[in-house]
Amino acid sequence: MRIAVDAMGGDFAPEAVVEGAVLAARQGIEVVLAGRREAIAAALARHPGAADLSIDVIDADDVVGMEEPASCVLRDKRRASVRAAAEAVARGEAAALFSAGHTGATVLAAFGLLPGAERPALAATIPTLAGAAVLIDVGANAECRPAHLVHFAAMGRAFARVALGLAEPRVALLSIGEEASKGNELTREAHRLLRASPLPFAGNLEARDVFSGRADVIVCDGFTGNVALKVSEGLVETVEQLLRDELSRTVSTRVGFLLSRRAFRRFRRRLDAAEYGAVPLLGVAGLCLVGHGRSSTRAVRNGIMLAARFARDGMLQGVREALAACATQPAAS
Amino acid sequence: MRIAVDAMGGDFAPEAVVEGAVLAARQGIEVVLAGRREAIAAALARHPGAADLSIDVIDADDVVGMEEPASCVLRDKRRASVRAAAEAVARGEAAALFSAGHTGATVLAAFGLLPGAERPALAATIPTLAGAAVLIDVGANAECRPAHLVHFAAMGRAFARVALGLAEPRVALLSIGEEASKGNELTREAHRLLRASPLPFAGNLEARDVFSGRADVIVCDGFTGNVALKVSEGLVETVEQLLRDELSRTVSTRVGFLLSRRAFRRFRRRLDAAEYGAVPLLGVAGLCLVGHGRSSTRAVRNGIMLAARFARDGMLQGVREALAACATQPAAS
Repeated sequence: MRIAVDAMGGDFAPEAVVEGAVLAARQGIEVVLAGRREAIAAALARHPGAADLSIDVIDADDVVGMEEPASCVLRDKRRASVRAAAEAVARGEAAALFSAGHTGATVLAAFGLLPGAERPALAATIPTLAGAAVLIDVGANAECRPAHLVHFAAMGRAFARVALGLAEPRVALLSIGEEASKGNELTREAHRLLRASPLPFAGNLEARDVFSGRADVIVCDGFTGNVALKVSEGLVETVEQLLRDELSRTVSTRVGFLLSRRAFRRFRRRLDAAEYGAVPLLGVAGLCLVGHGRSSTRAVRNGIMLAARFARDGMLQGVREALAACATQPAAS
Repeated sequence: MRIAVDAMGGDFAPEAVVEGAVLAARQGIEVVLAGRREAIAAALARHPGAADLSIDVIDADDVVGMEEPASCVLRDKRRASVRAAAEAVARGEAAALFSAGHTGATVLAAFGLLPGAERPALAATIPTLAGAAVLIDVGANAECRPAHLVHFAAMGRAFARVALGLAEPRVALLSIGEEASKGNELTREAHRLLRASPLPFAGNLEARDVFSGRADVIVCDGFTGNVALKVSEGLVETVEQLLRDELSRTVSTRVGFLLSRRAFRRFRRRLDAAEYGAVPLLGVAGLCLVGHGRSSTRAVRNGIMLAARFARDGMLQGVREALAACATQPAAS
């Protein structure tokens, strides 16, 4: 199993990316690093024994800055590292792409769209009282049409089968009221389309139930999904900070804080993984995982391992079939 | 200070509402209850000494069901309790309206709009690391235009002055990236308008900073605000549940849970107050507080007391002036 990695993508690239790749290679994953050959060689040289691992390099001169508009990047930077990595996957030289770089550029660089997909979407795995759920889209599309949300539902379901190991994931639509009539224009029409689609649709889910485990796949536009995910992340940090402040006053409460912090941190790690680990970009014609820009060495290693796992479990094929089923079955059936 | 209360509004009306009104009256607030006279009399009869309190009744036969479309309610139910209560305020017989009933009907019943306001908005007070902040709109408008968000900012600032006691509240726009170019069509244009407005605008705020205290007034459309508020509420419940599960295993960790729970609950109560206490409906030409449908006796009492406090502190006049300033100053100044 070989994973193509954008060695120049991310705030701590290439060092953190190369080190993460070395750690993944030590776990038996074959890696091909795309980026500036000398910079990669210098980073690799810091890791004794790296030369004995299965790590190849594709030379790609152009580096994409995090602030550059995605469209310009792809027009002007023909030899962008993320593009070179995607091309290695397209040529069949690697099973999946991992990049912690510019998400917009990755979206555009990463293969074409799968048949039936109009937009790619980012799917986050979030912790719930019942285990975990998939929230889709968490930021690839700030603007969506109702039909996009039906595709997100189909893709999210295929992903949930692989990522959560569920046979029949339950799909719900994130809205601001359970009734079909509640929400905004987008969710009201998406509700109607989902109801008419062949997908098993459990109706609207209110935001207070996102973490309750009432749905396995929670569908929304990328603006709403990103807000929901990030407000949760910020809230967990805030609560931890407040607990620390309140409980550090006496010895006994300090013990209480230390005990509760362990449990708290476990939850926080699971939530952080949604953003800081790698999330798959669904709907593109190649397996693609997007890491957070601030990805650490560990996050990069985890992202590469996850890409390998999804490749092994046939995630891309599942998404392809889900989209095909969505397209061929009449919407009113 | 006299407060008009929709006695028939809310899941536990009229009993919980009447009891809440009795509690507020015992704190020295004058109350006028609008609703079915016999039902109110029966509920009042359960409270010994209620007859000695300053509680009047306005007979209003029609009761608004929570599932009725707001527009039909106001067309068909000429004698709806919420309307009778609003009319008492309009006639100058009460300083503010409190209703825990159908929010949509309250929005339509509650006076006309203030000059300069195109839409009323619900403003929630949320806890932050720095104290508290105002999140506006949290659900009155599922669909917004960019100019609405500028009005929300002006109204939210006037409210923050009274509710948070801040001289110069900092306004930020909730979006999915700090740069002006990030977000959706609504937030990009709202960013431009806010930048050009006379309001002190601190730029975009990412959702992870909602609870950080970096902004005092956080502006968004009602769909996004409702999702942000409710996902936070659900998350706090989930984390508390997980802590309980994880920490109840041994005696020492159980003690840790009990200690941390106290601090945790304090935070949760502050967050719950945003939804379960009463939130002001800003932009209407009368002081109006909206309680949650599930309002308990305590929530009703708190809502009535809050209405009295805002009336005393001239909140409506502050909002009126903020909207007037927004309208008269050239947008480019």
